Amino acid sequence: MAQPNPHNTYLPGYKEVGHHEWRTAENSAPYLLPTLQSLAETNPSLTLLDVGAGSGTITTSLAKYIPQGHITAIDLSPDILSRAASHAASVNATNITFQPASVYELAQTFGPAAFDVVHAHQVLCHLDAPVQALAQMLAVVKPGGVVAVREIDMRVWSFHPFSETMRAWVEVQKATHAAAGGSNEAGPSLVAWAMRAGARREDVKASMGTWLYATEEERRVWGTSFRDRIVGGEMRKKALELGIATEAELDRMGEEWQRWMETEDACCGTLHGEILIRKPK
Amino acid sequence: MAQPNPHNTYLPGYKEVGHHEWRTAENSAPYLLPTLQSLAETNPSLTLLDVGAGSGTITTSLAKYIPQGHITAIDLSPDILSRAASHAASVNATNITFQPASVYELAQTFGPAAFDVVHAHQVLCHLDAPVQALAQMLAVVKPGGVVAVREIDMRVWSFHPFSETMRAWVEVQKATHAAAGGSNEAGPSLVAWAMRAGARREDVKASMGTWLYATEEERRVWGTSFRDRIVGGEMRKKALELGIATEAELDRMGEEWQRWMETEDACCGTLHGEILIRKPK
Repeated sequence: MAQPNPHNTYLPGYKEVGHHEWRTAENSAPYLLPTLQSLAETNPSLTLLDVGAGSGTITTSLAKYIPQGHITAIDLSPDILSRAASHAASVNATNITFQPASVYELAQTFGPAAFDVVHAHQVLCHLDAPVQALAQMLAVVKPGGVVAVREIDMRVWSFHPFSETMRAWVEVQKATHAAAGGSNEAGPSLVAWAMRAGARREDVKASMGTWLYATEEERRVWGTSFRDRIVGGEMRKKALELGIATEAELDRMGEEWQRWMETEDACCGTLHGEILIRKPK
Repeated sequence: MAQPNPHNTYLPGYKEVGHHEWRTAENSAPYLLPTLQSLAETNPSLTLLDVGAGSGTITTSLAKYIPQGHITAIDLSPDILSRAASHAASVNATNITFQPASVYELAQTFGPAAFDVVHAHQVLCHLDAPVQALAQMLAVVKPGGVVAVREIDMRVWSFHPFSETMRAWVEVQKATHAAAGGSNEAGPSLVAWAMRAGARREDVKASMGTWLYATEEERRVWGTSFRDRIVGGEMRKKALELGIATEAELDRMGEEWQRWMETEDACCGTLHGEILIRKPK
């Protein structure tokens, strides 16, 4: 039976994805790697479902760890999947199938217990029914398999230098994210969500991870993305619609991100909740 | 010449240290371990200075990685060092010398270029002259050696469940920490502090790490510590002196920590800045 289907679009609507392509299994899914390697030792031809694969850099990076395994990478957007497929071809990752699909319809799309590992990175934080999505992920993982999820705590930004303008930017980031149906508290909520999706506490292993933008290259990639979203992107439009900042204030935030990325000792860190759910045999 | 000596006491004045003894090299200095192992391969008898070693659990844990090396562990408090020495004896860590000393007087205590590695965990955040402390650490490390520092961003707490009472607790935590001369922004300031202490940007490698309290045991150890500090410890006394919370409000925070630690899906994460400074040869 079809699941009810809440928001079935990727709401942030980013047009540029340079900052997404910075992502790898090593910087975005390190908590999964020891488990993945251990599963692959027992079963080299394991199957992995990558939910919300986006531009596919985490997917191709995961593929390296299971050269004899197979990854099914899904996303709502055929456009981003075709970009991901080009990326996969460019790095000779041949063990990935790309397929448009919704996380809310995993069970009907793939059938129960179809994968050894089901992975999502920064997906549930965009959904207005994350528990329902997690229940679908649990439904398609095999008994003895693992669901792995990592999501940001959008309330938490660790900046240097910090300023009132950056504080205001964090508020805009949170308000526009929430207005688009996302959760600002996804990271630390993952254990609670997993239990509401049917997992037992003893089958959930929680950890936290970080992203840090500190090198000149990282500051450029991420600073440009944050600057562009606030001076001309969807986020600016939404902030103005919500009436939470003026044009002038948003311009100042863009200038602040520009200054930040040009500052040699600047950094910005984010905090991410991580869970590994072992499905009982 | 003696350095000027700002605050030369450990101001938080915690009486119980159970939560300190939870700390290990693996959960509190993972960013240092690959470098430490690589240095030990070239020079098995390397020397490490552990600054602000406290109850010594990180120290003994680091000692396992350099069995042929030697650690000098310093702290301001002879009492805590004697506890640390007992702990070291109990785990048969025989390659550690414990010695009372101040981070502000490292050069005069040990002479220049005395150690291959100089490490501090959650020390600079308590000091009112962290750059001066870092300059001393750089002074006593050998050319080609490494200074390793990890410090919390005290503004950033990732809770589930979250509440207005927890938000108020974070404000009390920050205000009492700052009133004691500490920095709430130590974590993301480390690169900037390193450069002010004389390091070149290209010799500083920044990363971030986390602590997560999520298992029943972790919630008990840390929840008890946070509860006790707010219902009866130094933090309560300071909060009342500062006039930032009433007795009733502080009691409610204690009750909230009690509830939090009894909540099966609760967690609390913190974010820590980390730097490795390679001293040029």
